[in-house]
Amino acid sequence: MTLERSPLAPAHFPTLPDIGGLRLAVHETGLKYQGRPDLLLTSLAPGTAIAGVLTRSSTCSAAVLDCRAKLGQTSDAGAAIIVNAGNANAFTGRLGAESVEVITSAAADALEIPVARVFSASTGVIGEPLASDRITGVLGQLVQGLGSAGFEQAAQAICTTDTFPKGAGRQVQIGGQTVSIAGIAKGSGMIAPDMATMLSYVFTDAKIDQAALQQMLARLTDRTFNSITVDSDTSTSDTLLVAATGASGVDVADDLPAFEDALHAVMLDLAQQVVRDGEGASKFIEVRVTSAKDNADARKVALSIANSPLVKTAIAGQDANWGRVVMAVGKSGAQADRDRLSIQFGDLLVAQNGWMAEGYSDADGQAYMTRDEIQLSVDLGLGSGTATVWTCDLTHGYIQINADYRS
Amino acid sequence: MTLERSPLAPAHFPTLPDIGGLRLAVHETGLKYQGRPDLLLTSLAPGTAIAGVLTRSSTCSAAVLDCRAKLGQTSDAGAAIIVNAGNANAFTGRLGAESVEVITSAAADALEIPVARVFSASTGVIGEPLASDRITGVLGQLVQGLGSAGFEQAAQAICTTDTFPKGAGRQVQIGGQTVSIAGIAKGSGMIAPDMATMLSYVFTDAKIDQAALQQMLARLTDRTFNSITVDSDTSTSDTLLVAATGASGVDVADDLPAFEDALHAVMLDLAQQVVRDGEGASKFIEVRVTSAKDNADARKVALSIANSPLVKTAIAGQDANWGRVVMAVGKSGAQADRDRLSIQFGDLLVAQNGWMAEGYSDADGQAYMTRDEIQLSVDLGLGSGTATVWTCDLTHGYIQINADYRS
Repeated sequence: MTLERSPLAPAHFPTLPDIGGLRLAVHETGLKYQGRPDLLLTSLAPGTAIAGVLTRSSTCSAAVLDCRAKLGQTSDAGAAIIVNAGNANAFTGRLGAESVEVITSAAADALEIPVARVFSASTGVIGEPLASDRITGVLGQLVQGLGSAGFEQAAQAICTTDTFPKGAGRQVQIGGQTVSIAGIAKGSGMIAPDMATMLSYVFTDAKIDQAALQQMLARLTDRTFNSITVDSDTSTSDTLLVAATGASGVDVADDLPAFEDALHAVMLDLAQQVVRDGEGASKFIEVRVTSAKDNADARKVALSIANSPLVKTAIAGQDANWGRVVMAVGKSGAQADRDRLSIQFGDLLVAQNGWMAEGYSDADGQAYMTRDEIQLSVDLGLGSGTATVWTCDLTHGYIQINADYRS
Repeated sequence: MTLERSPLAPAHFPTLPDIGGLRLAVHETGLKYQGRPDLLLTSLAPGTAIAGVLTRSSTCSAAVLDCRAKLGQTSDAGAAIIVNAGNANAFTGRLGAESVEVITSAAADALEIPVARVFSASTGVIGEPLASDRITGVLGQLVQGLGSAGFEQAAQAICTTDTFPKGAGRQVQIGGQTVSIAGIAKGSGMIAPDMATMLSYVFTDAKIDQAALQQMLARLTDRTFNSITVDSDTSTSDTLLVAATGASGVDVADDLPAFEDALHAVMLDLAQQVVRDGEGASKFIEVRVTSAKDNADARKVALSIANSPLVKTAIAGQDANWGRVVMAVGKSGAQADRDRLSIQFGDLLVAQNGWMAEGYSDADGQAYMTRDEIQLSVDLGLGSGTATVWTCDLTHGYIQINADYRS
């Protein structure tokens, strides 16, 4: 099945800043896909700090278990990340763990670094054994080629049902010096907190210690990758790694908020691109909830709306069916009072205090729904809790992609 | 939009036993639908015990609030149930409550019973005011016509996007005498616990007191209407009422288990018919979970599988994609151990102890998936918790119906 580029995709892959201390190489193994790279090797200079967030799935893949064990350790040695697309190596029993061991050990040998510094990920079909020799057999070539691939090729190599490669970057001035951040991501289905079903690798030449980076990452993940949902399904392989090479020589401890803002921007950009590539998506939807009892309740309501098949199909049909939004608030389990509830589509006040807003016309609502980007705001009128999540609509395209994926 | 009869529908509406003390009448108001009855009046003899379960939505309809208030009261007066289809009278503010008051009062006057004994429901589009005069204006005719309609017409009158009317009945011998039960239901979308988005009215000529009936109903609802899901969405109007007229003269206190079994069978039959009419459904799916830590965990896993868009689209595509079942177990939040997990499709052992089962062939799996009725069993290998839920697949038909409903 060939998928057309999502109508919500950015016009082109962005120009990303170079990151000192990082080298990339890609390869076509032909394991599942033909005529495209499907294997990525990332080499990181000695001293790189690596932080990560991994799926909370209780049936997570062998690579996720391996990454989790390695993330806790700190080391000044060089590091590497190796990712293949097409086979998730998940739920493959003892063989799964063996493949990870074989691949990471071979990469460690080829790069002359400790195996504890080699992180891996596999994405694609679950439950089929991964032919690790198809990967280890080309490691020599990959190491030779380090530095030859750019971010766009790297982003392509990790795609599965994605219709476009995803990249984002920012530069920030700290103490008069430039710090660069560049990241790539993949993911288009099986996307829901925690985490969105996806892989994302973010690189920076900032100098920051591992513990500080890990704490920052946890904070930012909640507001980015854990605030997107495509289909409420969560993958067994979700992996987000941030690697700080320190090559800029700029210690970001001098202005941590500035660095955190820039990293947030990169992560949000990548997370939103994943939604824009949601399987079959024709609309990008922002759901904002305000005046909930607390932030947790706001998040419940926002996710209940964003995951509701009836809300998502109404938006696909360009139907300003705010009754379904009311339904989704009601089923969320959060505290809500029908007669304090207000709903807006963009700036258009649709419902207020438990009924259709005065002056609202269905024609205005329907006109708003023809947009590509929909903003849906719900005010619960109860407290000060807020949440924002991003999702896409549910279309025939989603069914087509997912009723067909394995065949 | 005209919908074709679900391929999973029973061949015909069943022959149901007469229930003494119950009279039915239907009418065509033309409020939304043309050429079909859309209004049902049910009259119940004095002394009828009425029990009920209502949606837990925090944005429930005015009729649900009114029913909840009335269910707590007991009375020996005659009773009535009035239901209209096409407009849910939900989220219509003050006007919603006024409509309910106007309609139930008019019905009480016409039938010469207390208004506290008149239960109502409205189903259909949310957020549009209900023209109650179109209902009160025909009440005289409806009362005149009481006894003229059968269960099939009654079931038709409460349908919205249903493709077939739903009825079920049983008879049971208690102390050598016959007790009859007959019920109707509607619902095909916005179906999820709690409760399935639906209306159901079950009638029996048994003699039973209200408190005993209410307790029994609560127990049975968990194993029937609260164990089905079509799209994980929950309606603002879900209403299940059971009315026991006592006309048989048989006091079921003499053999409560026999009566409970028969009532369970009727409720399960109706609940499963709702799933068989799930919007766009092409497969009826039973999800069984065993050996969970406890029953609550088993239910979490079962609903996570039954509500997963990726599992439901795989089944729609007749794809034995057990990897997606693993994913759904993993995201459920229940305790699970990948390496103790076993999965069966029907009698076919697919996965065992964390990997594909020995002897399983994909061809066998794919052959099984061509059936209309799929049984998916997951054994967690941890404890003694079990749960069974029923759902349907997710197809293009669902998108078509729901992207189009209001227009």
